[in-house]
Amino acid sequence: MMRDVRMKGFRSRTSVPNALAILEGRTGRLPVESVHVRECVGRVAAEPIAARIAVPHFARAAMDGYALQGESTFGANAYTPVELFVVGEVRAGRGTLPPIGKGEAVRITTGAPVPEGADAVLMAEYAEEVPLDESRSAPPHNAIAIVRAREAVAPGKHVGRVGEDVPAGMSIVSAGRKLRPQDAGVLASTGISSVPVVRRPSVRVLITGDELVEPGNIPTESTIVDSNSVMLRALALRDGASDVEIEYVRDAREAVYTAMRGATEDVILVSGGSSVGPEDHAPLVLEELGEVAVHGVALRPASPTGFGFLQKGMSTQTVFLLPGNPVSCLCAYEIFAGPTVRALGGRSRAWPHRTRRCTVAAKIVSELGRTDYTRVKVEGDRVTPIMTSGASILSSTTRADGVVIVDEGHEGYREGEEISVFLYDD
Amino acid sequence: MMRDVRMKGFRSRTSVPNALAILEGRTGRLPVESVHVRECVGRVAAEPIAARIAVPHFARAAMDGYALQGESTFGANAYTPVELFVVGEVRAGRGTLPPIGKGEAVRITTGAPVPEGADAVLMAEYAEEVPLDESRSAPPHNAIAIVRAREAVAPGKHVGRVGEDVPAGMSIVSAGRKLRPQDAGVLASTGISSVPVVRRPSVRVLITGDELVEPGNIPTESTIVDSNSVMLRALALRDGASDVEIEYVRDAREAVYTAMRGATEDVILVSGGSSVGPEDHAPLVLEELGEVAVHGVALRPASPTGFGFLQKGMSTQTVFLLPGNPVSCLCAYEIFAGPTVRALGGRSRAWPHRTRRCTVAAKIVSELGRTDYTRVKVEGDRVTPIMTSGASILSSTTRADGVVIVDEGHEGYREGEEISVFLYDD
Repeated sequence: MMRDVRMKGFRSRTSVPNALAILEGRTGRLPVESVHVRECVGRVAAEPIAARIAVPHFARAAMDGYALQGESTFGANAYTPVELFVVGEVRAGRGTLPPIGKGEAVRITTGAPVPEGADAVLMAEYAEEVPLDESRSAPPHNAIAIVRAREAVAPGKHVGRVGEDVPAGMSIVSAGRKLRPQDAGVLASTGISSVPVVRRPSVRVLITGDELVEPGNIPTESTIVDSNSVMLRALALRDGASDVEIEYVRDAREAVYTAMRGATEDVILVSGGSSVGPEDHAPLVLEELGEVAVHGVALRPASPTGFGFLQKGMSTQTVFLLPGNPVSCLCAYEIFAGPTVRALGGRSRAWPHRTRRCTVAAKIVSELGRTDYTRVKVEGDRVTPIMTSGASILSSTTRADGVVIVDEGHEGYREGEEISVFLYDD
Repeated sequence: MMRDVRMKGFRSRTSVPNALAILEGRTGRLPVESVHVRECVGRVAAEPIAARIAVPHFARAAMDGYALQGESTFGANAYTPVELFVVGEVRAGRGTLPPIGKGEAVRITTGAPVPEGADAVLMAEYAEEVPLDESRSAPPHNAIAIVRAREAVAPGKHVGRVGEDVPAGMSIVSAGRKLRPQDAGVLASTGISSVPVVRRPSVRVLITGDELVEPGNIPTESTIVDSNSVMLRALALRDGASDVEIEYVRDAREAVYTAMRGATEDVILVSGGSSVGPEDHAPLVLEELGEVAVHGVALRPASPTGFGFLQKGMSTQTVFLLPGNPVSCLCAYEIFAGPTVRALGGRSRAWPHRTRRCTVAAKIVSELGRTDYTRVKVEGDRVTPIMTSGASILSSTTRADGVVIVDEGHEGYREGEEISVFLYDD
């Protein structure tokens, strides 16, 4: 079963589209979980969500003024105001009032429930309140003042009807929606407490390489600083990982075996030791514990990339074998691991970067049958590849403004062609 | 000093550009703080950061093969290979070797330090290793094997020189840069542990309104669910707030006073009670404790918005008075508070939304002298305003694809005009 490619080189490399097709066929969204509506923004709805109650769930005043029966004001105008008895006051959140009748009104503020019997709101600017003793007729026992309406209001005027914003049972968001701040607001408004969302993937990063010291140290002699853990952690969090654990693993088969077998996360990112050298244990260990689906891809600068799957109980883990070289590691994450992390959490596999259409200002060179991750400078709408001596130059990705993916069907791009650039910054 | 605008209406409304100019003049980036390089991604560099050490800090092999003096191989080809003595082996992270001399070679793996004396790497595929006893001359005491070079390599070939990626002292990022995953990788590589970044603003949200119940509850009678806290928290975190505290405050002057005076955060967002009604205490309390800079803006649907400043000891707090109405609250946050939160943390004031150029498919109506926050549907590249009965319809912001800002210089947009849409989704 096991084939040991170490020191023999890759027999053949899988094309990037073929490798991505395998990943898409084998990885889908994780199961549903519930989160409190306060925590749901940015999460992906696992199913359609409908309003539990109507918003508003009572008829509400849309203006400050007087709630009344519109009919009581018919014929009123500035010269011949109509007189009504004020029988109470209602403010938002201060309880309700008994029903009101013809010729009666209650003071009301915007958002407060319109009392039963009333069907319209007279705006304060068309009303004048006067003391009871100026009444031209006998006031009812509960009257507290007189209001003179200087305008006739039609029934329904300035009253927000029940369900005006959201009718009860209305679908608010559909499955797959990445929830916006305002979605959470609407969900909360309709009495929803618990929101069904796609579970986010957990990620473990296994950093191999005996030459590595942890970030924050100054390397001495022949050691170098591990920079992949900081990159991979930030990238996985960007793509919706719930949490990212970093583990340093010795360049020894047993150490890699123990780490891979012990990992419980949905996604395992192995940095380094993924190629075909004498200390590249990860592919062999993955084949032993589970399955290597792809090893070696027609991709520059990340050709030793691989991935596969582990089955632990009922759950499948996706394992990515990423080159230790930082630029290759970044490239392999973006091409293969990123889309998978996003898809597991219910997001789109598409790159999250902003894109810009640009004109090629200096030739971009690639090869037919190979995908290239080419770092570029963008000036205005002109794009130029960055010349570097190779994949080991991580600083090229800090000098670059973005990246152009040259697919396997292109030998590159000529000056003057219009192409799409993925921008590193938002 | 204090003017009480309650129940008298706003005498005049400040234009949105004038209000923003005041905010820009009064709010700038917060002071520097240090974070560990592992935590710096997404933060804004407070000053230029230079490499502490070179990367690599030793000459490194760029290929697997043999480190040697290029000169020793001159004249070699497939028919007349040149013989060298293998005097050792060096792997990445496994220490260094004594200097090597003319006619000597050491086995080396990619990334390992090239020993002193060597100046080139012969690729493994052009080398053949044979036992010592096949030697044509007397081997030195430390020889372990013979290697036959089938190709001449020029000095410098396949050797990454010190500082090839990053020379010591080179500027890696400039001040104001929002740090990318790969930036953190480069910073770590150059031995940097502590990264100077702009401090992120802390935010406190004061939710007023006695009619409100907390998100997660089902409202009864005349209560409604507070939806602004969930929106404002998510928006402030999107804009780089370090943390967002939510506090519910009674509709009473003393309660608002106590809450505003007790808040220690950089930004205070007051939701509700910001207008000119009898229970709108926040503007008066802010004027009493500090300064109201703007109250009432020419903006639909958030005209009662205001903001001002509190001085506590050496630090200035920015206080936003946001309408309680959810759509108005969202609009006022996006127009005024969002840019400020971002700027305090060192980010751009510009809206973080993606934009799309679209053609107006149905007239968008506004008024000269007023800024409108118009929710729109986008189909293909055609944009249509969403018709609603008013600012209270929060579900309009979930049905909408984005928003068009009609500035005060426009009466709206005619069918066929090309305009920019801020998209709600990424």
